[in-house]
Amino acid sequence: MLKKVAICFALLISLFVPVAAQLPSTPYSPSLLLGAAWYPEQWPESRWEADLSLMEAAHIHFVRINEFAWSSLEPREGDYELDWLDRAVRAAERHHIAVVIGTPTAAPPAWLTSKYPETLRTMADGRKDGHGNRAQFNWSNPKYRELAAKIAARLAERFGNDANVIGWQIDNEYGNESYDAQTQAQFQQWLRGKYKTLENLNARWTTAYWSETYQDWAQIPIPVGSGNPGLLLQWKEFVSDTWRSYQRNQIDAIRAHADPRQKITTNMMGWFDAFDHYTVAQDLDFASWDNYVGTGHLDPVRTGATHDLTRGFLRRNFWVMETQPGVVNWSPNNNMLDKGEVRAMAWNDIGHGADAVEFWQWRSALNGQEQYHGVLLGADGTPVPVYDEVKQIGAEFEKAGPALDGTSVDSQVAILQDYESRWAINWQRHNSAFDPVDALVSYYASLRALARSVDIVADTAPLGRYKLVVAPALNLLTPEAAKNLEAYVRSGGHLVLTQRSALKDEDNSLYPQRQPGPLAELLGARVEQWYSLDKPVPIDGEWGAGENRIWAEQLSFSAPETRTLMRYGKSNGWLDGQPAAVTRSVGQGSITYIGAGLDGKTMKAAAKWMMREAGLNPIMSDLPDDIDLAIRSGNGKRVFIFTNYGVSPRTITLPSPMEDVLTGGTVSSVTLPQYGVAILR
Amino acid sequence: MLKKVAICFALLISLFVPVAAQLPSTPYSPSLLLGAAWYPEQWPESRWEADLSLMEAAHIHFVRINEFAWSSLEPREGDYELDWLDRAVRAAERHHIAVVIGTPTAAPPAWLTSKYPETLRTMADGRKDGHGNRAQFNWSNPKYRELAAKIAARLAERFGNDANVIGWQIDNEYGNESYDAQTQAQFQQWLRGKYKTLENLNARWTTAYWSETYQDWAQIPIPVGSGNPGLLLQWKEFVSDTWRSYQRNQIDAIRAHADPRQKITTNMMGWFDAFDHYTVAQDLDFASWDNYVGTGHLDPVRTGATHDLTRGFLRRNFWVMETQPGVVNWSPNNNMLDKGEVRAMAWNDIGHGADAVEFWQWRSALNGQEQYHGVLLGADGTPVPVYDEVKQIGAEFEKAGPALDGTSVDSQVAILQDYESRWAINWQRHNSAFDPVDALVSYYASLRALARSVDIVADTAPLGRYKLVVAPALNLLTPEAAKNLEAYVRSGGHLVLTQRSALKDEDNSLYPQRQPGPLAELLGARVEQWYSLDKPVPIDGEWGAGENRIWAEQLSFSAPETRTLMRYGKSNGWLDGQPAAVTRSVGQGSITYIGAGLDGKTMKAAAKWMMREAGLNPIMSDLPDDIDLAIRSGNGKRVFIFTNYGVSPRTITLPSPMEDVLTGGTVSSVTLPQYGVAILR
Amino acid sequence: MLKKVAICFALLISLFVPVAAQLPSTPYSPSLLLGAAWYPEQWPESRWEADLSLMEAAHIHFVRINEFAWSSLEPREGDYELDWLDRAVRAAERHHIAVVIGTPTAAPPAWLTSKYPETLRTMADGRKDGHGNRAQFNWSNPKYRELAAKIAARLAERFGNDANVIGWQIDNEYGNESYDAQTQAQFQQWLRGKYKTLENLNARWTTAYWSETYQDWAQIPIPVGSGNPGLLLQWKEFVSDTWRSYQRNQIDAIRAHADPRQKITTNMMGWFDAFDHYTVAQDLDFASWDNYVGTGHLDPVRTGATHDLTRGFLRRNFWVMETQPGVVNWSPNNNMLDKGEVRAMAWNDIGHGADAVEFWQWRSALNGQEQYHGVLLGADGTPVPVYDEVKQIGAEFEKAGPALDGTSVDSQVAILQDYESRWAINWQRHNSAFDPVDALVSYYASLRALARSVDIVADTAPLGRYKLVVAPALNLLTPEAAKNLEAYVRSGGHLVLTQRSALKDEDNSLYPQRQPGPLAELLGARVEQWYSLDKPVPIDGEWGAGENRIWAEQLSFSAPETRTLMRYGKSNGWLDGQPAAVTRSVGQGSITYIGAGLDGKTMKAAAKWMMREAGLNPIMSDLPDDIDLAIRSGNGKRVFIFTNYGVSPRTITLPSPMEDVLTGGTVSSVTLPQYGVAILR
Repeated sequence: MLKKVAICFALLISLFVPVAAQLPSTPYSPSLLLGAAWYPEQWPESRWEADLSLMEAAHIHFVRINEFAWSSLEPREGDYELDWLDRAVRAAERHHIAVVIGTPTAAPPAWLTSKYPETLRTMADGRKDGHGNRAQFNWSNPKYRELAAKIAARLAERFGNDANVIGWQIDNEYGNESYDAQTQAQFQQWLRGKYKTLENLNARWTTAYWSETYQDWAQIPIPVGSGNPGLLLQWKEFVSDTWRSYQRNQIDAIRAHADPRQKITTNMMGWFDAFDHYTVAQDLDFASWDNYVGTGHLDPVRTGATHDLTRGFLRRNFWVMETQPGVVNWSPNNNMLDKGEVRAMAWNDIGHGADAVEFWQWRSALNGQEQYHGVLLGADGTPVPVYDEVKQIGAEFEKAGPALDGTSVDSQVAILQDYESRWAINWQRHNSAFDPVDALVSYYASLRALARSVDIVADTAPLGRYKLVVAPALNLLTPEAAKNLEAYVRSGGHLVLTQRSALKDEDNSLYPQRQPGPLAELLGARVEQWYSLDKPVPIDGEWGAGENRIWAEQLSFSAPETRTLMRYGKSNGWLDGQPAAVTRSVGQGSITYIGAGLDGKTMKAAAKWMMREAGLNPIMSDLPDDIDLAIRSGNGKRVFIFTNYGVSPRTITLPSPMEDVLTGGTVSSVTLPQYGVAILR
Repeated sequence: MLKKVAICFALLISLFVPVAAQLPSTPYSPSLLLGAAWYPEQWPESRWEADLSLMEAAHIHFVRINEFAWSSLEPREGDYELDWLDRAVRAAERHHIAVVIGTPTAAPPAWLTSKYPETLRTMADGRKDGHGNRAQFNWSNPKYRELAAKIAARLAERFGNDANVIGWQIDNEYGNESYDAQTQAQFQQWLRGKYKTLENLNARWTTAYWSETYQDWAQIPIPVGSGNPGLLLQWKEFVSDTWRSYQRNQIDAIRAHADPRQKITTNMMGWFDAFDHYTVAQDLDFASWDNYVGTGHLDPVRTGATHDLTRGFLRRNFWVMETQPGVVNWSPNNNMLDKGEVRAMAWNDIGHGADAVEFWQWRSALNGQEQYHGVLLGADGTPVPVYDEVKQIGAEFEKAGPALDGTSVDSQVAILQDYESRWAINWQRHNSAFDPVDALVSYYASLRALARSVDIVADTAPLGRYKLVVAPALNLLTPEAAKNLEAYVRSGGHLVLTQRSALKDEDNSLYPQRQPGPLAELLGARVEQWYSLDKPVPIDGEWGAGENRIWAEQLSFSAPETRTLMRYGKSNGWLDGQPAAVTRSVGQGSITYIGAGLDGKTMKAAAKWMMREAGLNPIMSDLPDDIDLAIRSGNGKRVFIFTNYGVSPRTITLPSPMEDVLTGGTVSSVTLPQYGVAILR
Repeated sequence: MLKKVAICFALLISLFVPVAAQLPSTPYSPSLLLGAAWYPEQWPESRWEADLSLMEAAHIHFVRINEFAWSSLEPREGDYELDWLDRAVRAAERHHIAVVIGTPTAAPPAWLTSKYPETLRTMADGRKDGHGNRAQFNWSNPKYRELAAKIAARLAERFGNDANVIGWQIDNEYGNESYDAQTQAQFQQWLRGKYKTLENLNARWTTAYWSETYQDWAQIPIPVGSGNPGLLLQWKEFVSDTWRSYQRNQIDAIRAHADPRQKITTNMMGWFDAFDHYTVAQDLDFASWDNYVGTGHLDPVRTGATHDLTRGFLRRNFWVMETQPGVVNWSPNNNMLDKGEVRAMAWNDIGHGADAVEFWQWRSALNGQEQYHGVLLGADGTPVPVYDEVKQIGAEFEKAGPALDGTSVDSQVAILQDYESRWAINWQRHNSAFDPVDALVSYYASLRALARSVDIVADTAPLGRYKLVVAPALNLLTPEAAKNLEAYVRSGGHLVLTQRSALKDEDNSLYPQRQPGPLAELLGARVEQWYSLDKPVPIDGEWGAGENRIWAEQLSFSAPETRTLMRYGKSNGWLDGQPAAVTRSVGQGSITYIGAGLDGKTMKAAAKWMMREAGLNPIMSDLPDDIDLAIRSGNGKRVFIFTNYGVSPRTITLPSPMEDVLTGGTVSSVTLPQYGVAILR
């Protein structure tokens, strides 16, 4: 216990030195936390002790509880029963297990939606959602917000100063909007606030097209399916703002009572794009997400990018708030991860900046929709096979905690990610195979293999710390973001734009310049025409010879110092011999536009070229492809996490002897079997 | 005529000696009946004679009529016009053709649903069904039941003692439920009757999960799409009970007037699972089903299993109430069966215990939704090519009638089938490729090839007569069924459980023991973990080496006498080297659990092992795979029906000389071309 | 200018000599017109000059405008603002660009549908369509027609005598019907007009089937999804009649004010079958259609057939009212046509009888649903690469105008096309692979390769001019059409019927004769049975040996002079050795029935046989397959248009020296690269 207090003290003063905010901590917390989702309300209290003993034995440091317990907390309106929850918190405390409390608003009680049917959301087809699943509430409804604030306040009054409560999760996996008349009226009011006059709105959306012109704010619909791109975009912005105010409502209710030591988050869902996560994340103390593999196995690159995306929401360490004990229940084929893969996945989380990993769930309710989801305990209350692997993770977290204490991911390469651009492309893909996330990951994969650390941030984020910034498919570029990028280049940064970039403005309207719109002058070049491809097009140039699929942009340039990097070969006649990628030096910096899609080989060459142009050296460039390397640093430390994702054992020769954090000795090489992990400093 | 009366007399006293109830008979009926669906209301009466003459010439022994004739029977409310129907029955009688009368409730008249719109069902999306197709009625609606009982009673008053009417079909192919508020209220009332208190219901459905807890019976919804497994299951039970009472309503109306000689049935649809057929079948005099092949050709094994399923509803012989004259009209590709295949299909029906085969339909209405369906007469009223093949069937039924008279299928092997288990798995397949009917048929196919006769019955059926009982994917095991199975084993029976068995209880709740739940102790083993597979897993052991796809269960055992039959090979790490199938002797009996999916080869070996363990000998085990053998026995007779489903002719050498029922002589071997059939005794 | 006036004069008196009506002309028009869709209301007036100058430079002769401008024309009810439109017409005039005005009724203003919600259509699922896309109006609604007539009349008052306005387009791409109660009442009234009594309707639809009988007209529903074939058919006929009266309403409003020199059309959509285009086209002055390629490239045969279909609506030359500047925006993959392919496509239009080709669109609105559609000008207002190719087309149209002036397509072969038959088959395909348009095109392709000119006309069209008439899948044959065909054969014509022909009558009811129904006696043969095929069936005979897929009809014949052309080989037992195609001479004419589906090779042989039987000689039969030849003639001229659709250059040796219209000299052979075009006379 004393030792743990000491660790905690160190953590309190040192964690996240490079960043402002701090993650929650408790007397029981090591630097890396292992958690589980526990639902005491589903079981008789007599069972709690057995569960918590098994948790403690598995080195579980915290539980998240309560996020679906509203009907147990307030079985009748205004009749609050929080004693059982207190008893659960106390029982956990006795096992040195801290608690994150979820507000229970993702699943309102039956009495609530029966009495106030306006709190039920209206689905896109006009029907009301109903009781029996979850997320059936209307996120914009004032009555629902009133009731949500009340229950949140009650919880905070009771637990806001509880030493064993380390944080709060607001609601759960935001997602469902509502299409009712009241929401529509709010949307119209929101538009009025933004556009001031209908004339302005009509002009910026070009509503003269298809006679869409509005004569009255009340005529503006909520778009369902297709619609004016301006309307579609503003609806999403409204949805995002409304999630923010929905969340703010509860944060305010909690903060009125809670000790600042208790941190507030919500659990996001990776690339899910129902709202702008940057908008919603700004009011949180830290970000977290639910990391699940459906069918198949962990893709360390794509999942790694998702971690980096989440880390980018607030540009600091984050939590994995839910992850699977090997298997989920919502895929067409819910196969189990291989033995050892759950552990590798946990270290992948940590390597990308997670400070906590929580397994969902501890034990399945005997009934309810998720009976088949992965668990640590079987229906009979005894451990299932994966329990031991999770226990090993917990032990290792404790062992590696001091080494990783106060570290984070330090990157000189940023990839820009933009919800508006993804929406804009997904509404009008033009080629159904063009996936903006795939486009991003294709650049991410090659750059991370060289730089080992990559940030994924918004296009309005501060970019000064980066040597290289890549903006894949940044389709919608606001004037503000354009200024941010231009300033970055002019101050010596190296910016790479790619296909479909800077076509649209903040109203999802075409820029009245060719791509890259407001950056075309800086580039000294422009896109003459984009082409959705029905057959591959050869490309050739500085990055070797390759093949371009899906999409191609024909570039031309005017500035004499703009240089062609790649050209198209014989193709549809239009592209033949035309520039496919161009670059221009701007002072110490540069701006590059890649109009071609790059295959694996040319993408690797392009990444090398970008690194070199930006003055960056690849790190351990001779590692086998199977080996993933993540680096966390800070507090004067630099910790390497190696994982073998190949099927054969691999030996890694280190540049110099390092301390093996898990085994304790000093090594100059390590051999890893499949899913093997080594933590070296 | 005299001869036929004699046959009938024999039939009256001897048919189905092993079972209690008897199928309908008439003065005109041989033991095997050929029928056709006839719609006199669609044609001028002047045409009837021509139709009936052609039927008589084709050896058609009965027609089913009237099941869509409500608007002709009652063109205005309360204005009954039954004379035309009487004239049709008399006209048939003149051609020695008996009649089965369908109650016309599957298609209410336009005046009825216009005047009483509450009789129209509400679809799952909330919209009302409408006039113009069929099955648009609300099966729970009291007004509809009142009107249905009235028309049924009128028909029974008129034809309940008609010597030429041999039976009744209630409605037609039950299927569509309703989602209206009145039905919801009935459902809530039904739940109240079953669970008594909301506390009890909440506990048994674990509604604490996702805050689903009900504070009032009126809050309980009809589930659409996903939902609490307990709610989903009880809705299906309610649907089943409501079909039963819907049917009972009409049976009572008929029985009040009908001669007990007239038997009552309804036409089921094979594996269709919209309701529990055991619930609905119990009020019928005999079971029947509509046997159709869509695209492709007859699969004698799967269709054979469907026959055996239907025979198991009341555990006695049944009718094929509809079958195709070669082709249907509702598949993506409605190809015709090959020449000879329609006849083979009819004998497949008989071989599995059908006593009647009715072709749908005699002749197509000139207009209406089914213009392209197979018929015996073209639109011009003259025979189409398949007519002659059906005529041959009729002639053969008459020839083989005496031999098959009083026989049924006598089986020592049973396969358990359970609607609750199929629903439970289909709601949560976990691996979309896991089809519970496929699982059943995979065991059925190998066992039937050895035993030649297999029963398919409910898990609560009496099992004493069986040496071997196999329960494929018996996912939901009620305590009552568990007791039935345990008693079976303890009294010397050989029980085989397979994948996913005994996971859930009668509320679709997880058993708080590992699988096989209440049978785990008897087995002395348990399932440590199930795995949905993304790649095949090798298996090896007593049944040879094979490959397991889709699903695998890792077994462990505690009882010292439990024995491992098969083990998993190298796989996902979890399964490697673990038991895949175990068995335990219990007195004279045994219980076996097969956790692996078996490929064709290991399944065959497993089936042989099961037969041997149960003390059963394979019958004619050297028959080529192409040859199907069905056996009917009873009344001191044993009749073998051989059919060649291969493309090449096959010669079957008989163990001893037998009588060839169709050709008349005694043979010691028979050679069958493709689709060739031999009936030997 | 003077020269152009002269051309116009010649055009006025000579164009379409073989047909009655004339296409619009203006002082600026050459014989072949190049156009563009222009939306002045989307841009500041200050931009118009720049646009029109670039148009004039590209040889654009006309613009279509206004078809989505209602909210600009009538921003508030009754407040008409037409001055801007006048200024746009005047500005165009200054650049020698004529104008086609679209009535703006395809997209009502927001105020209109807000104030009169009954003008919004009800979708098939019962929900109201809304503002924000287009075609949201209810085509049967009296209020909408009143408002549509008003705006059309206003436009005609202002522009009906404007010398620079050459024509009118009514609405845009008719398509969406409505499913509201008012429409249903109109439909019931329409049925009453057609059937007079319910007894008649019930009899002709055989509503005794499934108790569908109507006791009251008010019970008749609008069919959604499946339904009685008679009801389905009559609903489509009603829809067609209602589109006709919807259109007539606007034509009348315009004609009351417009100079007869101004011609009226609407833009159809090829094979689109939401209504009977023959019904709707009869009130137009000329037909036009929107010719788009989605994913992939121009199929000159299928698109050629679509042209010929459109030419057949009024049996005279037509316009391509919209076509793509290389790319569309609504396909899964909107690839660009190859360089040169847009030009080839324009000449394909002309070769099949188009007299104008209009590119959609000139320049994209900056916002709105079609931002990605092909354009001639980029968002920045400067030409995109395809502009030059379109400019070349314009120049060539002017060069070739005199040669093609007064010419049309002169054909001796007709293919019959029938909406009722296509609907009937598509509602009951029986084999999902049987596509009636594919069936038509398979005959068209082989016949056109021999005859070079093929008409596609209705089955009630005058057939006297044709030597050969082929009726692919003429499933529904009205008595009127049957008489037309019989008279054609009896007067010496050669008629070929194919699969599924003449099964149904004008109520979509089965004929009470076997196929070909009322023509069976003339044929002296009949279809014994049709078969949807699950495997190919060999065929052999006069057209060689081949393979039949999808569908087969087993023929038999009674007339001694009926002759078998092809027979089926070994197959499903039913077809083996049976006649697959038969023919019978009738006086100088003949009637042939092809029951088999023909593969490419036998189809070619069959086409040759048909040509020979009909006394027709193939034209330039030694042209390579890659070369398309279209011929326009009239006014004493015969003009050959050759296009190379292959990838390799091809040399065409001419039978005699010809004038090369585009290059000016006389040539005896021409060599064409890929997409190369030569116009020779």
